[in-house]
Amino acid sequence: MNRTHVVIMAGGIGSRFWPMSSPEMPKQFIDVLGCGRTLIQLTADRFKEICPAENIWVVTSKDYADLVREQLPQIPSEHILLEPCRRNTAPCIAYVCWKIKTLNPKANVVISPSDHIVIDTTEFNRVVKGALKFTADSDAIVTLGMKPTRPETGYGYIEASLALTSPSNKEICKVDSFREKPDLPTAERYIQKNNYFWNAGIFIWNVNTVINALRVYQPELSAIFDELRSVFFTPAEQAHIDERFPLCPNISIDYAVMEKADEIFVYPASFGWSDLGTWGSLHETSSKDAQGNVCIGTNIQMYDSRNCIIHTTQEKKVVIQGLDGYIVAEKNNTLLVCRMSEEQRIKEFSAETSK
Amino acid sequence: MNRTHVVIMAGGIGSRFWPMSSPEMPKQFIDVLGCGRTLIQLTADRFKEICPAENIWVVTSKDYADLVREQLPQIPSEHILLEPCRRNTAPCIAYVCWKIKTLNPKANVVISPSDHIVIDTTEFNRVVKGALKFTADSDAIVTLGMKPTRPETGYGYIEASLALTSPSNKEICKVDSFREKPDLPTAERYIQKNNYFWNAGIFIWNVNTVINALRVYQPELSAIFDELRSVFFTPAEQAHIDERFPLCPNISIDYAVMEKADEIFVYPASFGWSDLGTWGSLHETSSKDAQGNVCIGTNIQMYDSRNCIIHTTQEKKVVIQGLDGYIVAEKNNTLLVCRMSEEQRIKEFSAETSK
Repeated sequence: MNRTHVVIMAGGIGSRFWPMSSPEMPKQFIDVLGCGRTLIQLTADRFKEICPAENIWVVTSKDYADLVREQLPQIPSEHILLEPCRRNTAPCIAYVCWKIKTLNPKANVVISPSDHIVIDTTEFNRVVKGALKFTADSDAIVTLGMKPTRPETGYGYIEASLALTSPSNKEICKVDSFREKPDLPTAERYIQKNNYFWNAGIFIWNVNTVINALRVYQPELSAIFDELRSVFFTPAEQAHIDERFPLCPNISIDYAVMEKADEIFVYPASFGWSDLGTWGSLHETSSKDAQGNVCIGTNIQMYDSRNCIIHTTQEKKVVIQGLDGYIVAEKNNTLLVCRMSEEQRIKEFSAETSK
Repeated sequence: MNRTHVVIMAGGIGSRFWPMSSPEMPKQFIDVLGCGRTLIQLTADRFKEICPAENIWVVTSKDYADLVREQLPQIPSEHILLEPCRRNTAPCIAYVCWKIKTLNPKANVVISPSDHIVIDTTEFNRVVKGALKFTADSDAIVTLGMKPTRPETGYGYIEASLALTSPSNKEICKVDSFREKPDLPTAERYIQKNNYFWNAGIFIWNVNTVINALRVYQPELSAIFDELRSVFFTPAEQAHIDERFPLCPNISIDYAVMEKADEIFVYPASFGWSDLGTWGSLHETSSKDAQGNVCIGTNIQMYDSRNCIIHTTQEKKVVIQGLDGYIVAEKNNTLLVCRMSEEQRIKEFSAETSK
């Protein structure tokens, strides 16, 4: 029996990728890269060597249940857990880990977002396997830390104690502190040192470690799932979850556990990771033409244009002339043209449009 | 019996307004201004005071017959003449005038494009009526000359002899010469004088004058319609036209007659005319917001943008941020974003797209 379980968190609404992404169809369910696979499909594909499909779990919103079933038919439908409302990552992780422990108290768990990308899946696999080996029989919590390539202000950082490496895996070292998204001068200071890493939101720990940590740091949250244990895997489960899940505190696993616990480790790695949190990060990640344009769509012509990202549906014809550094995105009868440098305002634009 | 007939030429393909305008749906059949009436409907409306609907004629391509019937149901269907191919304006005018003369040898005719706009229809009516009075019983050819407001290089110019006014109408004077579209220094020279006017492509003359002029200057063309006269208004007419019309020389009425004949007059006028030949002219003509943007569509939001023209179908949602001096147009699943200063390249773009 394979002890390894993978949890894919897929409840996000992707508001920064409007209009490509919308609350009805967030970005994890979209073929953002134009490669023929959606982000959640690419995420599941990435774990093929880590565990069999029947050990993969998806936690998502009730609204997206059909999307998950449709896009990931290989995953057992009883492994698709449905949140009645959004409560950030700690309740999500608690719910799925309490269930996994019921099935296998010795489970070793990878927690992963559904909407990030990884270019070098071979290195990704090597790192994840190394981390799983490390947590299988220890109470360590391992986070994956991405070696930063630029002073990104959109990511949280992990400060590592590089000298405090683990005896069993010299690549893994102790976390000194978690740092919130920095301003630009701070980010520039971070990347001049060699012990700051981007927090990729990927956690590896065994299921007992998860539950023990939540019991210590989030007793209220833990109590809810302790009480629910008797209904897990019964027809009554969803009704109980619908009633009790909204009572969970709205808190991220970083705040709930990582910033409080002691035995936190970071595995610094480089495997071409991006959270694709912004159009700019998609532009940076994607392959560009000689003028630095990223064109995702089948019939896009660019004239006198540079450093743009154009994203349209398959059948759309697009002619762009004379743009430098713009996002042009079209979906669901909605068109956005916006300077890439102003993309943090897209949430505001989409809110105005839906009024 | 009203002697006045109005001819609306509606065979153009509007290639400069792509993608709003396409060969399947050229701009005369589109509600370019977003006012609820297409350009050809506005053109027909403009002549309401000049003659009854049963004296209006439309010459168009066979491809657009249904569009004309649908948009101008008040016009007798036997007044919708169908060209089997495009042969510029001289054969078009010959065909319709030969037919009008058969019905009424004393007809007095206004020839008008279908895709221009006029803001001040009261002044337009006054000028057209004045010109019709002038040509009713003379062999004068009157062109309407627009008082220029800028050194436009996209229009032909009419050089007038302001001293040689007509005794019967002091506003009308002799044409000295027709000038082709000038370069910018030449256009600037023209508008510093007071005797250069834009050629609006609107001609007023009686039907005998038209036919006599064509007989003198275009005997080959005239021979074709002399021969066809016996089939006019018979079921065989279209078949004969389909056979003989392609043999007509491909020539504009300006080259064919205006630049050769002697008795050419110009009626200088100002009634807010534009040929809407370009996106720029539509931008100039339309009402703008405080930032100089023209938004034609129902759900368009502009942020940090100036001097743009945005043209979309009714149901489209559009958000534009950070554009200055651009055309954004969307139709038939085709999107164009182009600097207004580069709009002369739109023909090229549309040709590439349809490959």
